[in-house]
Amino acid sequence: MLSAEANIKVRYAETDQMGVVYHANYLIWFEVGRTAFMEALGFHYSDMEAGGMVAPVVDIQATFKRPARYGDTIRVKTWLESYDGLRFIYNYQVLNQRDELCVTGRSVHICVNKETFQPLALKRSLPQWHEAYEGALKEQEGD
Amino acid sequence: MLSAEANIKVRYAETDQMGVVYHANYLIWFEVGRTAFMEALGFHYSDMEAGGMVAPVVDIQATFKRPARYGDTIRVKTWLESYDGLRFIYNYQVLNQRDELCVTGRSVHICVNKETFQPLALKRSLPQWHEAYEGALKEQEGD
Amino acid sequence: MLSAEANIKVRYAETDQMGVVYHANYLIWFEVGRTAFMEALGFHYSDMEAGGMVAPVVDIQATFKRPARYGDTIRVKTWLESYDGLRFIYNYQVLNQRDELCVTGRSVHICVNKETFQPLALKRSLPQWHEAYEGALKEQEGD
Amino acid sequence: MLSAEANIKVRYAETDQMGVVYHANYLIWFEVGRTAFMEALGFHYSDMEAGGMVAPVVDIQATFKRPARYGDTIRVKTWLESYDGLRFIYNYQVLNQRDELCVTGRSVHICVNKETFQPLALKRSLPQWHEAYEGALKEQEGD
Repeated sequence: MLSAEANIKVRYAETDQMGVVYHANYLIWFEVGRTAFMEALGFHYSDMEAGGMVAPVVDIQATFKRPARYGDTIRVKTWLESYDGLRFIYNYQVLNQRDELCVTGRSVHICVNKETFQPLALKRSLPQWHEAYEGALKEQEGD
Repeated sequence: MLSAEANIKVRYAETDQMGVVYHANYLIWFEVGRTAFMEALGFHYSDMEAGGMVAPVVDIQATFKRPARYGDTIRVKTWLESYDGLRFIYNYQVLNQRDELCVTGRSVHICVNKETFQPLALKRSLPQWHEAYEGALKEQEGD
Repeated sequence: MLSAEANIKVRYAETDQMGVVYHANYLIWFEVGRTAFMEALGFHYSDMEAGGMVAPVVDIQATFKRPARYGDTIRVKTWLESYDGLRFIYNYQVLNQRDELCVTGRSVHICVNKETFQPLALKRSLPQWHEAYEGALKEQEGD
Repeated sequence: MLSAEANIKVRYAETDQMGVVYHANYLIWFEVGRTAFMEALGFHYSDMEAGGMVAPVVDIQATFKRPARYGDTIRVKTWLESYDGLRFIYNYQVLNQRDELCVTGRSVHICVNKETFQPLALKRSLPQWHEAYEGALKEQEGD
């Protein structure tokens, strides 16, 4: 399975008065994971935006199993659940330095025109990205 | 239905380079909604913590329908989907000043001891909160 | 003296594991104060951006005297220290619900073209804003 | 001169609708720099807290010279300007991958008791930290 890993040192700013990482920050770490996934495919999200597209989140879900804390070094594993030319679904696992699972998540994204927010086919706008995502999906399904 | 409303003016800091509110910030607005819901019941979350409890998020989900933007005034509607003595489920709607639905969400929380993170029955620790939540739920079901 | 006031309820997300508001968040509250100041003059920052300008921070300073906490209701007072057609200097006071001073601050901004980040004279680009700021400054100096 | 370096990949969440990193986020990067500085001395801030101390920011200043952007890899250089047993002053430089200076900063911290926020002498509470900071300062002055 093609999955990307990103390492994150927990920042003091990411904690709250419960003494653990504030839950919304895991969604930011998911984004760090997506960036790492795109880089593993040879791309960078900023190139997508330079090409006139953005890929906003349309649905997101997270399950919190174990809190991450300041001082922890976190690993975010990101892989593709599905891609159909318009819609991406990513899955995430957030683990701490003892390999304990902290959070799992899933996000759905669509490609839209940067100015109008109207749906766009990745295949037409950025054909190389399209091929790379199709390839990643096939590799995935072959597992 | 007992539901609380919180008003939020979008902050510049909450936008991203897509020109809209960054998605993780809606989860922070859900929290503002929960705080308003507790206040509508006559309580404040900080009293729960003073009583030795915290109510961390164990699961969260959000669907993004329409972006909120800097300059918007947002309304977060929050209500209780369920409460069984240990676990709360809240529902959220985020609307803009034109009453357009921007985001819907749902979060699941459990009561735990502040130091040990072990589950606690709200009934025993904070009986008045327990009664208020049971009351809110009944009112809800009566709708 | 012309000064604007903005009210802010401290969010749980704004605390850190020290049990108080994380220091960088006061800078976001300063921005909420600036927005309120512009609204007191009859403008909105988003209109400036629609006019092709932005006013980035070029220097900022804050002194922390007393921590704000979750549960507090904060008042941000904002006024103009100087304005010379290109550069704005704002001053801030952050007070809690007991009127205790928590933080003071000062920020310097310049007007630049949104695309090129080259300096722009507000007088030429947005003459009404220019006049309002000159007026605010005179009122200030008259105190 | 003893200085620590921390590398940071700019996160999408850190941008705002100006298309650049939101200014308050540089203060969070300064904190990442301080953590790296403490680690270069052989310590971790979380050990200080475990010892019953915290070191809140009492004054902070930043000058913004050039915006950092999503896609940039940032280097934060942190060094000690002064330390007198109670008060630390750190200096910061934030540079991009082309070694261009983006932001400079300075923060003042004091050691306080975690519960009471009353000043504490580091020498008494954490003598090893005290010695390391005195050593760092001497090395600094010897330059």
